[in-house]
Amino acid sequence: MNTLGKIFRVSVFGESHGPGIGVLIDGCPPGLDINSEMLLGDIDRRRGGEKGTTARKEYDVPEIVSGVLKGVSTGAPLMIMTRNTNKRSSDYSKFTSIPRPGHADMVTRQKYKGYADPSGGGYFSGRLTWGMVVAGAIARLIIKPSKVRARLLSAGGNTDVDSEIDKVLREGDSIGGLVECVASGVPAGLGEPLYYSVESAISHAVFSIPAIKGIEFGSGFRAASMKGSEHNDPIISRNGRTSTNNAGGINGGISNGNDIVLRVAVKPPSSISKTQKTWNIEKDEMDILKIEGRHDACIALRVPVIIEAAVSLALADLTLINRAIYGGIG
Amino acid sequence: MNTLGKIFRVSVFGESHGPGIGVLIDGCPPGLDINSEMLLGDIDRRRGGEKGTTARKEYDVPEIVSGVLKGVSTGAPLMIMTRNTNKRSSDYSKFTSIPRPGHADMVTRQKYKGYADPSGGGYFSGRLTWGMVVAGAIARLIIKPSKVRARLLSAGGNTDVDSEIDKVLREGDSIGGLVECVASGVPAGLGEPLYYSVESAISHAVFSIPAIKGIEFGSGFRAASMKGSEHNDPIISRNGRTSTNNAGGINGGISNGNDIVLRVAVKPPSSISKTQKTWNIEKDEMDILKIEGRHDACIALRVPVIIEAAVSLALADLTLINRAIYGGIG
Amino acid sequence: MNTLGKIFRVSVFGESHGPGIGVLIDGCPPGLDINSEMLLGDIDRRRGGEKGTTARKEYDVPEIVSGVLKGVSTGAPLMIMTRNTNKRSSDYSKFTSIPRPGHADMVTRQKYKGYADPSGGGYFSGRLTWGMVVAGAIARLIIKPSKVRARLLSAGGNTDVDSEIDKVLREGDSIGGLVECVASGVPAGLGEPLYYSVESAISHAVFSIPAIKGIEFGSGFRAASMKGSEHNDPIISRNGRTSTNNAGGINGGISNGNDIVLRVAVKPPSSISKTQKTWNIEKDEMDILKIEGRHDACIALRVPVIIEAAVSLALADLTLINRAIYGGIG
Amino acid sequence: MNTLGKIFRVSVFGESHGPGIGVLIDGCPPGLDINSEMLLGDIDRRRGGEKGTTARKEYDVPEIVSGVLKGVSTGAPLMIMTRNTNKRSSDYSKFTSIPRPGHADMVTRQKYKGYADPSGGGYFSGRLTWGMVVAGAIARLIIKPSKVRARLLSAGGNTDVDSEIDKVLREGDSIGGLVECVASGVPAGLGEPLYYSVESAISHAVFSIPAIKGIEFGSGFRAASMKGSEHNDPIISRNGRTSTNNAGGINGGISNGNDIVLRVAVKPPSSISKTQKTWNIEKDEMDILKIEGRHDACIALRVPVIIEAAVSLALADLTLINRAIYGGIG
Repeated sequence: MNTLGKIFRVSVFGESHGPGIGVLIDGCPPGLDINSEMLLGDIDRRRGGEKGTTARKEYDVPEIVSGVLKGVSTGAPLMIMTRNTNKRSSDYSKFTSIPRPGHADMVTRQKYKGYADPSGGGYFSGRLTWGMVVAGAIARLIIKPSKVRARLLSAGGNTDVDSEIDKVLREGDSIGGLVECVASGVPAGLGEPLYYSVESAISHAVFSIPAIKGIEFGSGFRAASMKGSEHNDPIISRNGRTSTNNAGGINGGISNGNDIVLRVAVKPPSSISKTQKTWNIEKDEMDILKIEGRHDACIALRVPVIIEAAVSLALADLTLINRAIYGGIG
Repeated sequence: MNTLGKIFRVSVFGESHGPGIGVLIDGCPPGLDINSEMLLGDIDRRRGGEKGTTARKEYDVPEIVSGVLKGVSTGAPLMIMTRNTNKRSSDYSKFTSIPRPGHADMVTRQKYKGYADPSGGGYFSGRLTWGMVVAGAIARLIIKPSKVRARLLSAGGNTDVDSEIDKVLREGDSIGGLVECVASGVPAGLGEPLYYSVESAISHAVFSIPAIKGIEFGSGFRAASMKGSEHNDPIISRNGRTSTNNAGGINGGISNGNDIVLRVAVKPPSSISKTQKTWNIEKDEMDILKIEGRHDACIALRVPVIIEAAVSLALADLTLINRAIYGGIG
Repeated sequence: MNTLGKIFRVSVFGESHGPGIGVLIDGCPPGLDINSEMLLGDIDRRRGGEKGTTARKEYDVPEIVSGVLKGVSTGAPLMIMTRNTNKRSSDYSKFTSIPRPGHADMVTRQKYKGYADPSGGGYFSGRLTWGMVVAGAIARLIIKPSKVRARLLSAGGNTDVDSEIDKVLREGDSIGGLVECVASGVPAGLGEPLYYSVESAISHAVFSIPAIKGIEFGSGFRAASMKGSEHNDPIISRNGRTSTNNAGGINGGISNGNDIVLRVAVKPPSSISKTQKTWNIEKDEMDILKIEGRHDACIALRVPVIIEAAVSLALADLTLINRAIYGGIG
Repeated sequence: MNTLGKIFRVSVFGESHGPGIGVLIDGCPPGLDINSEMLLGDIDRRRGGEKGTTARKEYDVPEIVSGVLKGVSTGAPLMIMTRNTNKRSSDYSKFTSIPRPGHADMVTRQKYKGYADPSGGGYFSGRLTWGMVVAGAIARLIIKPSKVRARLLSAGGNTDVDSEIDKVLREGDSIGGLVECVASGVPAGLGEPLYYSVESAISHAVFSIPAIKGIEFGSGFRAASMKGSEHNDPIISRNGRTSTNNAGGINGGISNGNDIVLRVAVKPPSSISKTQKTWNIEKDEMDILKIEGRHDACIALRVPVIIEAAVSLALADLTLINRAIYGGIG
């Protein structure tokens, strides 16, 4: 169940403090130019390093283990990984008895019956998005000349992101953020209705990213308050260009050739310095928890490149499906 | 690509004005009580009949063609269908040259190269959700004692739905709506991180429903403006009960035992009586379109039971997966 | 689990004595000429009617319920079905307490816990291959100009099939048969190593047909006794033509442009007039069983067209996958 | 397409002379005892080292990169790999212009358009079965107490394997072999008819192994010459035990509780010292090829453990599916 996509298929593996993390990509066409250097741009964007993201250095240099020969994809499965430098520590074992509010501590205990790796969040760590970003960089090659770009619109409800982050850092708190993503140059005709619509494919991928709690396309939630005469986008050219884009570039689950536009709600990171109430499972009573160490105050700062990856993966898969069944577009 | 789910697998077929529509369900456990009568409740809710929904009578009586013997599922695939009474008409052929704004007319032309059935929307018709509702009624049996309930919160931004609909009916316009869905009694531990999280599974299913343009879980988009200290739900019992539910019952992509809560934005129906501007493909110039006939003024009225079906399908699939890999829960 | 294929996806449904049987086909390209008449040829070949096949008339006329408009596929899912005329009878209920040797009576009891439909074999009936044959007729359109042809080489070990059948008919017994299938005109390059090799895809489909107990490609089992210098097929042209075909047209799991050749072992039908020993579950002791009625003496007579369908389905799926990932062949 | 299984899902990666090879396993239940040592037994059997297998030492020590904590599976994906010591060499580049008969040289050229890695067979190397063997060792834990054992019955048609190998070694030739595999203790009820029958699942996995050209279950090809009265296995106990096993433990695609028995034909290795005729693509004419170096004279010697792995993988997947839909067996 750990695989995204139907033809361009992406699986990730690893734990935050285990030996390493990585990604296995199947269904990648041969002949694409792929090398470690081209992956570093997106990897660096994911790592962040700005104020509000954790200062802990992650050694993220990718090793391409298979599927590439002399800088070109061979058609065989691609496996790309990176080694971890953080080692498993006992610091995290206490969270199995005192689960952190908002974290997966409690549910992993219930689901995996005590077998899950708790260190650094284990398989649930945001670190696992490294593989999605790497796969996204390759998906971008498949959907060319389409371009996918995301940016942070606001943090904590404030478009002045930096000042908002300064504030919560002082408070030992964290904040959420709102990210907008635009895929431009996407041809009309992608998407398989009903059950692999563009929205289904993209939302499935986007909600694989930890901390995402909402997604909307085009006018999104505003559409619930709109009239048809306002929401319908007038078609103004023979190839389907519209004068407005309330549909977010998607009609009936199929791309219509206009920009695909979506917005994503990122929740505030759960790890905060402020004391919190939670249940102590060992003592079987309420307890007070204070989480030590440095943490991301605003994970939304790092999320745009991951959203780009998720959207690119979905579009790459739909592109290959379209090629298979309809012989391509245009 | 026309299949939802990995073990409890649902595929729909049919066209609005073809011989019939239906659903094929695979992976349904034997021994469930299934008969036509128990399906009628949800089928009737989907049909609507209230003010603001189309008065056109649809003959929706289900025939169980396979997979059930003497009112009990056999373990073989279930096929359930209903015959159409509306016949294919030439009324719709004009929309292939004068595509309706907001409709799939233009994109189906581009994707299917003129081969798609245009009558009544063909495979893109909202009528195809009949099969999802039927499958949803069966999924409810699998996720018992969990219960899934949805309701319309507002239409056109107004909680006084009836008066809002009266208004747009007079104007020959349509309106969108906001639907909330709550799944109660869901055990902790459902969901397969990263790539088949509860949010991924549910959003994938929900966005298979035409007219949905946004989804959010728990606090959803408000989370983007919240602080961690506000958003984190304090755990107040040994089994993971929380005092607030900003997470919408899901942590790290896994159900946490609290209510799963989501809201969905439904766009206004695209077919309105008001004249609209669009491109005339035959004349290759802008044109004025007036759509005749009766249409739903507010499809959101019919959507709650379809959302319930989509959510039930996702939870049923995750339930069976959980049973496979973890030997069930509790 | 009731679906064959990854892009060209085929699912069957129905029970032998239920309301009807049929097939749902997803991933069928738009623009193919499809109508009931073109399906009848293969349907008739499957029905048999020769000596040695059951005289029971099956009403097999296909109804195309969805996915076709004016004789051309639309790109939407195809559902094609036929009604049954045999009704569920209590004749079969005794086989749940006195399981027929060689039949699925005993295992369905164990697997489905008494819920399976026993009439006429229910979902396990050979009648279910009707849907595979119908889907195969459509797959043939996708793999054009490749041609798939199968024929019965021998029955009961005798190449004089008719005299062999006469003999077992007199004895109230049944016989197996050996079928050879050749797919000619298949382009080089189909097949996805390792896990969706041509042999994997074909054998998976072929073993979905009841009564098949063996498959071999090219020299097959003889290869186990051969030397490399004998088995290696010398390449004699720039496009990979070989002077012998011990590989059966497949190297490393990939089609090599020569004929794909396979042979299939069909076991004798289990239903025979001769008395047999079996366990009486009700009495919990050994018992004697005599099966009444008319039965196929040699199911292998009907199998060739079903093998053709299975091979065509596998090749159609590999063709679409190849188009998706490698942009087609040639 | 590089994934085997539906719930217990196995994907391999790597090239013979690339940085490393490995396997990604998804759907592995938590709580299983897994460590490098327990994998070494099957890995060693695969490596061979007997007369007739290549003397080239492969460094095969497994590294468990993810999914295991303190010797116990966590429920997260398992990635297990090993580093290669053989480096890519230009020795193999000549086979792209002078394709070896019986090898994948010609078809990979046609399929991958020159991008495939030719060194040591690249992704097509038998070395890739390392990952299947590792996954098989884990599958054995899931299907406990079932046991899967395979052995070489004959090589080159001779049950005196060693003398036969001595002979072909002297001749610079190679030989095929016949392998039998028995899965004992398999409960009745595994297998999903029609399209994921036990035979379909096992044959799909087995034909993923290079060099396999035939498979038969129970009496297999002999069944084609048998009568029903001979082939039907009399049921002699309440739990379905039979006095003969012509069905190979499978009725109607479902395990019947008796031993699952299958035989597999392994073709002779294609690489032989003897000179061979083939097409020289560069010169566009027939040519003489002599392959240097040491090669396996009889790959069938190494195949039994790989067959065991393939069968175990198929049974593990069917076991988990059965648990999901039917709540397990017994």
